[in-house]
Amino acid sequence: MALIVQKYGGTSVGSIERIEAVADKIAKFRDQGDDIVVVVSAMSGETNRLTALAHEVMDQPTPREMDVLLSTGEQVTIALLCMALEKRGYGARSFTGGQVRILTDEMHTKARIREIDNSRIFAQLEQQNVVVVAGFQGVDEAGNITTLGRGGSDTSAVALAAALEADECQIYTDVQGVYTTDPRIVEGARLLSQITFEEMLELASLGAKVLQIRAVEFAGKYKVPLRVLSTFEEGPGTLISLEEDTAMEDPSIAGIASERDEAKLTVAGVPDVPGIAYKVIGPVSDEGIEVDVIVQNAAIDGTNDVTFTVKRAESDKAKAILDKVAASLEAREVILDKKICKVSLVGVGMRSHAGIASKMFKALAEENINIQIITTSEIKISIVIEEKYLELAVRALHSAFNLSDPDGENSSK
Amino acid sequence: MALIVQKYGGTSVGSIERIEAVADKIAKFRDQGDDIVVVVSAMSGETNRLTALAHEVMDQPTPREMDVLLSTGEQVTIALLCMALEKRGYGARSFTGGQVRILTDEMHTKARIREIDNSRIFAQLEQQNVVVVAGFQGVDEAGNITTLGRGGSDTSAVALAAALEADECQIYTDVQGVYTTDPRIVEGARLLSQITFEEMLELASLGAKVLQIRAVEFAGKYKVPLRVLSTFEEGPGTLISLEEDTAMEDPSIAGIASERDEAKLTVAGVPDVPGIAYKVIGPVSDEGIEVDVIVQNAAIDGTNDVTFTVKRAESDKAKAILDKVAASLEAREVILDKKICKVSLVGVGMRSHAGIASKMFKALAEENINIQIITTSEIKISIVIEEKYLELAVRALHSAFNLSDPDGENSSK
Repeated sequence: MALIVQKYGGTSVGSIERIEAVADKIAKFRDQGDDIVVVVSAMSGETNRLTALAHEVMDQPTPREMDVLLSTGEQVTIALLCMALEKRGYGARSFTGGQVRILTDEMHTKARIREIDNSRIFAQLEQQNVVVVAGFQGVDEAGNITTLGRGGSDTSAVALAAALEADECQIYTDVQGVYTTDPRIVEGARLLSQITFEEMLELASLGAKVLQIRAVEFAGKYKVPLRVLSTFEEGPGTLISLEEDTAMEDPSIAGIASERDEAKLTVAGVPDVPGIAYKVIGPVSDEGIEVDVIVQNAAIDGTNDVTFTVKRAESDKAKAILDKVAASLEAREVILDKKICKVSLVGVGMRSHAGIASKMFKALAEENINIQIITTSEIKISIVIEEKYLELAVRALHSAFNLSDPDGENSSK
Repeated sequence: MALIVQKYGGTSVGSIERIEAVADKIAKFRDQGDDIVVVVSAMSGETNRLTALAHEVMDQPTPREMDVLLSTGEQVTIALLCMALEKRGYGARSFTGGQVRILTDEMHTKARIREIDNSRIFAQLEQQNVVVVAGFQGVDEAGNITTLGRGGSDTSAVALAAALEADECQIYTDVQGVYTTDPRIVEGARLLSQITFEEMLELASLGAKVLQIRAVEFAGKYKVPLRVLSTFEEGPGTLISLEEDTAMEDPSIAGIASERDEAKLTVAGVPDVPGIAYKVIGPVSDEGIEVDVIVQNAAIDGTNDVTFTVKRAESDKAKAILDKVAASLEAREVILDKKICKVSLVGVGMRSHAGIASKMFKALAEENINIQIITTSEIKISIVIEEKYLELAVRALHSAFNLSDPDGENSSK
């Protein structure tokens, strides 16, 4: 008898047959007496179909109207899933983001959730109905439809779980859970039974792609127990927990993330004065472009290089902005390199274990991989390298830290 | 400088190219300085696609969820049309039925509009934006999405025109306007430049299919000047006016409507007592089945036959209801005849002109067409005949009343 929020992604609801299978899954939970709130994405392919329609009209579709358009995708799924539940004799009611009042800010196509009105949902649960909510969408204060950006359905689910104080938020996906690294790159990648929020946060943001980063942030912030599991196969998945697994006496590395769709921008020869990083990065951020790894090196001649990475898709736009900035700062040049990738080691155990970085660098050196940028945090070491070395680097690290071993998390002694 | 509400149906917005053409049309009006509120349907084929999805899940989809599902069709169109307008440099804002608060009752899949909040639209018009509203949909008091039933976009347009006190409501369609009869049946069918609301009401309800009947009712009630015209061809279309054209000194017949999708039900041998018609018809209406022509004949033996027509698609359901009613009333039998059709002569001039009915019956008799039911109103005479005679009857009447002649409206002397 628990209150569970379940999220099913586009692949899980990609056809009527799959929607029926999801309904069967939900029915089992209902039979156990659980209260279920379901968050669904658009049927796989639908968002792309709608995006293509918009692009037939204009290259840069109006963000407000893009949200009106894309939000229909999830709306179709909620209706169909409710029908499938009703057919099985289970009461079900669908709601758009606007209807349960998932209140967001006004940033169309990448809005952030501010507040959720849980009263309407509780009223439905009391009437023994399954509540099916359209993920990825909300409304702003003025009542305009907003979307949370791709993958935003995870965030919707976690935010709902937080607002409802749910016992667990289950993210159903097409993978079995969180692995030590991408199984397509390393055959011996191992499913983790548990991982901490902090680790998951780093892995998600660095490209493990199982969960949207904002969903993990939300879950951590509001202490929502989060579980990633497969729609198609049985299994407990991976629990994302607040605490480190105490059984792991000597953990160090949880996993290795890699990200390919990055690009590196360097503004070379800017004056070495306070605030210069802001003057360079500020205009890029202001355009809504997310800036990732940032490094700054002062040269002896009193100038400075500012280097950072952005999503590859946004790199041309960033370059154009920087060209203007560079002119006003009298910088020497702006260099864009699209052929890079990022590989990161993540693990809460790093905090207390020296020698992780040197072991990492050694493993890469043995493969003759040149490191372009290094950044570190308490639980993560990221390197930027040439894109072509991505798989080689991940495999070398996975092996060096012995992650395929079931006790591998403890083995970097 | 007028305020015009324009409605474009599914065929008019059936592809990106057509949506672009509609944007061009709207742009011309904006260039003249008109304020434009646009109501659009789902792109043609979309409603059928969504309906098919629902039917894959269940035979009788939950009405509430059906509305959630189908309302996405128009939502896609409003977004795409706004993008097309923005691309042309015209400010445009889309709104779902719920967003402009087209408040309806709770009858899912066939809701009726109660009230429209015009403040949000006026605010947008003031900012020089074209307002694009999703037709066919609204919300009930509790915030559930409702739809007005097929063709409901016409009603949305007229209701908006009334709420905004628009100067004209233009219904763009794939025909040039209202004809004396279906041009597919009678080659010489003639486009009417003007027609009264009353006539249009009868023609629409009787199957002229150019406009939804509720739209015409609304327009008549709130005195909204209504014009039907073609999206694809230039032309003034047909104005539906409050007053008879005074130039028509001697009008009689405006047009001939025919309806094929009807079925006739007879409950034979019920007791001839007061209230018997209600006892027979009541249970059918209570199930939301629209009852059309009703006749009742008392027999000499103290029993009575109640005969009426319903939509053919609903006739089996009506028959099942009547079988139960018949048992409790000890009626002799219930007879369902699906092979009938209805043909109607409509014209305000009938009021003051005798001899129309006899001329009609004579024309049919000359073709050996047997009349099963006759009903008359002030401006209409309808007959129910065997379905196979539909075209023959319409042609015979069109010719007898000389409607192909540009002065045909005056020629039944």
